[in-house]
Amino acid sequence: MSTMANRQFRLAARPIGMPKPTDWKFTTEPVRDIEDGEIFVKTQYLSLDPAMRGWMNEGKSYIRPVAIDEVMRAGGIGKIIASKSPKFAVGDYVSGGIGVQEYWAGPADDKTANFYKVDPKAAPLPKYMNALGMPGMTAYFGLLEVGQPKAGETVVVSGAAGAVGQTVGQVAKQKGCRVVGIAGGKEKCDFVVNELGFDACIDYKAGSVKEGLKANCPKGVDVYFDNVGGDILDDVLTRINMKARIIICGAISQYNNTTPVKGPANYLSLLVNRARMEGIVVFDYADRYHLGVAEMAKWMQEGSFKTREDIVEGLETFPQALLMLFEGKNFGKLILQVAKD
Amino acid sequence: MSTMANRQFRLAARPIGMPKPTDWKFTTEPVRDIEDGEIFVKTQYLSLDPAMRGWMNEGKSYIRPVAIDEVMRAGGIGKIIASKSPKFAVGDYVSGGIGVQEYWAGPADDKTANFYKVDPKAAPLPKYMNALGMPGMTAYFGLLEVGQPKAGETVVVSGAAGAVGQTVGQVAKQKGCRVVGIAGGKEKCDFVVNELGFDACIDYKAGSVKEGLKANCPKGVDVYFDNVGGDILDDVLTRINMKARIIICGAISQYNNTTPVKGPANYLSLLVNRARMEGIVVFDYADRYHLGVAEMAKWMQEGSFKTREDIVEGLETFPQALLMLFEGKNFGKLILQVAKD
Repeated sequence: MSTMANRQFRLAARPIGMPKPTDWKFTTEPVRDIEDGEIFVKTQYLSLDPAMRGWMNEGKSYIRPVAIDEVMRAGGIGKIIASKSPKFAVGDYVSGGIGVQEYWAGPADDKTANFYKVDPKAAPLPKYMNALGMPGMTAYFGLLEVGQPKAGETVVVSGAAGAVGQTVGQVAKQKGCRVVGIAGGKEKCDFVVNELGFDACIDYKAGSVKEGLKANCPKGVDVYFDNVGGDILDDVLTRINMKARIIICGAISQYNNTTPVKGPANYLSLLVNRARMEGIVVFDYADRYHLGVAEMAKWMQEGSFKTREDIVEGLETFPQALLMLFEGKNFGKLILQVAKD
Repeated sequence: MSTMANRQFRLAARPIGMPKPTDWKFTTEPVRDIEDGEIFVKTQYLSLDPAMRGWMNEGKSYIRPVAIDEVMRAGGIGKIIASKSPKFAVGDYVSGGIGVQEYWAGPADDKTANFYKVDPKAAPLPKYMNALGMPGMTAYFGLLEVGQPKAGETVVVSGAAGAVGQTVGQVAKQKGCRVVGIAGGKEKCDFVVNELGFDACIDYKAGSVKEGLKANCPKGVDVYFDNVGGDILDDVLTRINMKARIIICGAISQYNNTTPVKGPANYLSLLVNRARMEGIVVFDYADRYHLGVAEMAKWMQEGSFKTREDIVEGLETFPQALLMLFEGKNFGKLILQVAKD
């Protein structure tokens, strides 16, 4: 193995605004032999997520920043191609923190990578980075634990066609809610309504979100799952009901700002409506992921729960592929396919 | 009585920014005789509160706006000087929605005025507009129900020397918390530390609130009771702990804006810290006011709970007196004394 080359994307500079090609270093290093207790993993897929933009910034957050010259952090699915650990066998597929590179070598029980086995027969591998992975867990626990939707309530979710949004809406439907998505473009809106069963979808590129909310949420908004921040958060704040719950999951509209983040000017609607705005970080629910996976896998098998992935090929396309998230160009969970086996 | 004149302040125009003298009409009308079931109330004190600014605006809120030409809404303490109701006797003191006027006449059980008897022997009348009135109930239930402070946690409150802030800090001390106030000026800061027993107070006029929080909240902020909004809310957001609770009670820094409200740019700290921001409106706790009054009255009798009022005299001074709130000029609960008996 020591003659194999491992291509990697490393962080070259902390981006100002949208990441530029020069913020990355595309490096190649030889791979090393593994020792007792270690595994050698070949990257199959990498999950591209809005959160990655935050990891590139300096400063305190829920996870430490990626260091300059460090391999960029990424979750993904890999295949075990060598193992000196009883934990994994050659041919196993694992999910974990592989990083933006072709190979990973290290202890099978590495705490940072945190590899666990996934079953390619139970679901296609990309699903393990979507509803059955971090985005799905974020959606499932964020909606149910923080949002606490009740049957008959109206749930609104932004980024509706994205990885988290797809799951939020479908879980809310399963719980008997009226579900209204917000997404960019007719194609995405048609998808969440016709394929995923949302009750309605507001196309923020086609007109006023405020008017869309008025038309599609005649009883107001009880739960808002926010993936985007910015003006859309402000628009929803004008339509919330008494005791509404707003789940702050992300703010993709603000991640590449070079000016300060736009705070929600209508936040005093929380006061008027005795409403609540609360953040969610998926890691807090790690000890219950299996419960979320089990329930959603059951719905998938029943055919009442679908997900869509947008798969881009080739490790070398990583810098451009990542930008698709911030330009609203991906349609479904964005995944980078690094190898075919 | 029908020869008596009732002087009143009516809303003449909806203010843009800070209320101007021309936003008011100072009118005089004859008082009418009362009928069966009615009472005649002579205003003694009126409570001047930041919330009054909001009532002057058009638009949906937690209470309907004051109409143009209507007597300005205000809570206060009055004395019954005539009664055709068994509910109140001549000489009784009542608390309720009197409005900015010298007399009030109407049904004893009027739902809007919502008069209830207060005992001038149990506490001086102004206390019934402070800790034992709406500001006190707002502080007590907002802190305990929404903030849920635990002993040993750090509680920060802005507007610390104001009506709500005084009570928030002292209730938090009673519950075993470290309490840090934020107020404008050395005199107010000395008062809340030396008289009310806060652990520390940050003078926002003297220096950086961010530095003050760093110095005085070495373990971070677990509960923030926000009366002011604006930059101070943003500063506190940078210092909150995991699972922090932010109680949105008001935003006095923003009430007279002619530009849009400044939303909290650092609201994504809620995400990083899995923290919560929640609004409070005191009316929701009306059925439990007596519990709050009983507990705080006990502390007052024990000498472990104090309040301070800032009493301005003369109904005619109302327009200028109200502005003191927005200029930070009142020191303690602002009260307008309308009559001496």
